[in-house]
Amino acid sequence: MRPALAPHLPIVFDLLGVLTASSAGALTGVRKNLDLVGVVVLAAVTGLGGGVIRDLMIGAVPVAMLTDWRYLTAAALAAGLVLLGQHPRVLGRDLRVFESLRGRVPLGTAYLVADSATLGCFAVSGTAKALDYGLALVPAALMGVVTAVGGGVVRDVLVNEVPTVLRRELYAVPALVGSLVVAATDRYDPAATPIAFLAAALTMGLRMVSVRRDWHARLPQA
Amino acid sequence: MRPALAPHLPIVFDLLGVLTASSAGALTGVRKNLDLVGVVVLAAVTGLGGGVIRDLMIGAVPVAMLTDWRYLTAAALAAGLVLLGQHPRVLGRDLRVFESLRGRVPLGTAYLVADSATLGCFAVSGTAKALDYGLALVPAALMGVVTAVGGGVVRDVLVNEVPTVLRRELYAVPALVGSLVVAATDRYDPAATPIAFLAAALTMGLRMVSVRRDWHARLPQA
Amino acid sequence: MRPALAPHLPIVFDLLGVLTASSAGALTGVRKNLDLVGVVVLAAVTGLGGGVIRDLMIGAVPVAMLTDWRYLTAAALAAGLVLLGQHPRVLGRDLRVFESLRGRVPLGTAYLVADSATLGCFAVSGTAKALDYGLALVPAALMGVVTAVGGGVVRDVLVNEVPTVLRRELYAVPALVGSLVVAATDRYDPAATPIAFLAAALTMGLRMVSVRRDWHARLPQA
Repeated sequence: MRPALAPHLPIVFDLLGVLTASSAGALTGVRKNLDLVGVVVLAAVTGLGGGVIRDLMIGAVPVAMLTDWRYLTAAALAAGLVLLGQHPRVLGRDLRVFESLRGRVPLGTAYLVADSATLGCFAVSGTAKALDYGLALVPAALMGVVTAVGGGVVRDVLVNEVPTVLRRELYAVPALVGSLVVAATDRYDPAATPIAFLAAALTMGLRMVSVRRDWHARLPQA
Repeated sequence: MRPALAPHLPIVFDLLGVLTASSAGALTGVRKNLDLVGVVVLAAVTGLGGGVIRDLMIGAVPVAMLTDWRYLTAAALAAGLVLLGQHPRVLGRDLRVFESLRGRVPLGTAYLVADSATLGCFAVSGTAKALDYGLALVPAALMGVVTAVGGGVVRDVLVNEVPTVLRRELYAVPALVGSLVVAATDRYDPAATPIAFLAAALTMGLRMVSVRRDWHARLPQA
Repeated sequence: MRPALAPHLPIVFDLLGVLTASSAGALTGVRKNLDLVGVVVLAAVTGLGGGVIRDLMIGAVPVAMLTDWRYLTAAALAAGLVLLGQHPRVLGRDLRVFESLRGRVPLGTAYLVADSATLGCFAVSGTAKALDYGLALVPAALMGVVTAVGGGVVRDVLVNEVPTVLRRELYAVPALVGSLVVAATDRYDPAATPIAFLAAALTMGLRMVSVRRDWHARLPQA
């Protein structure tokens, strides 16, 4: 047994990640002008895809989203909020909160925040769950990265785009940094909880700064 | 244990779904002008993909298509029949049956029937197998939908198209309706067998009508 | 138990396959002008994807690449060598070996050799591992094919191309021939080791000849 993280911490980060990832997926669906079902499917795939791939690879089956009702609820909640935010008159009357938010938060910014938070939360939860299943440090950190980028990769493949992780941006690297921090400090249990938050924030921050500053991992011209 | 459906019913629907889904996949391959191997691969992927994803997610491994020879046989049979129907002179002489059928059944209609029947059969078999593996009502119905649409999604991704489930058509909804009927009535075992047939027919009918009547799930313009 | 192959043989072929497949994946990344992370991700996905799909489908979880450090090492090594070969000045000084190789081996040839060797190695290791997990002859050979073509399919999907296995070339057929040879001769254990090498060479040779001679599996015009 791995006593390091408070026992509920991995699942808290996992569910937070589902919330933010599903929001990012729903925003992609709205931007792509998909219909109601398309937006919900894209939200679910983005929110749950990374965790499903992780659970399958480490042998945690049936996968968590099928046995813990909070996963589907979190994904549905995120999709619903984004749809309400985009279509505030769906409920038959103006929803002032959403209407006023809508003009003020550009879609691009909302997406970047949701996507970066996803990287941070899933890097922590993915690594922690893999460690729980007995994986060594490096494979566990790799599972953190897979959980963090997996849902977005499946979404991008479905809407016929080359995944962000393959393009000229720092995307996998922030997730890897956070995952390695969790994996490397896992045995020092008194500090594990604050370190988990630190690792998530570090990943999220690195991703946001790298987008704003336009950091890349370009190869020299051959 | 779940005594509801006659024990052989889920596998009957699963195998019927493999037959119709593989036919739909082979028809896509023919329409895309793929070669012999391409058509067979597309038939197999479409016919078996949804069930593989379901089996992996609920932990039914090795997956059914590897342990029950009838799955591969059904997929091969469907691919063979479609190829014969398209190329009736392959066997060296005219096959009158296929030749006469060919002019009369438009490819589009054959595809719509095969695809709708797939949705119906897999919605029932996917939900029933998930219930057998102990899943709750909602996740089990979700597995019905995943089984029903999964193979088509993998096929569409392989031929570089945005999956039907994301486009402006009712595709996941009919599967969800049938799956929920099976999941909700599962405990009332005397009625389970007729209900399974009803649920499959309902899904198939909803899909066909929604295509013919051009039903959509459009979102209001933002 | 299946005593046929020397016990270490399947894993030797599996690791060789990871080396050659990761090289082919990295070469694709270089050709596609991806950045450093993109090349490494593509190498890993191509090298490890087929084995992961096989392991999931036969129920060998956690998948081998997470429990045996040699898998990740082989993938990283292959990616590193390709990057060095393409960017010999990365280490700050000319690497004469790579520089001199670079002009002489065309990228296309290097790719064809790596890709064909991948088919051969994975056809053997995939079939052998599936037999080890109790699968029958035909499903085991099918797992050989899936292992052989799986990584390439995932790579092609990620870079938004229709996978080679669906196009007008002999790609799955050589892998199927090698896999069937391994599956069919598996019980005659004294001959198993040389037959494994023969099957790998046969697959590799068939693929290379079919590309050079432009063999196809075209369907007659309907």
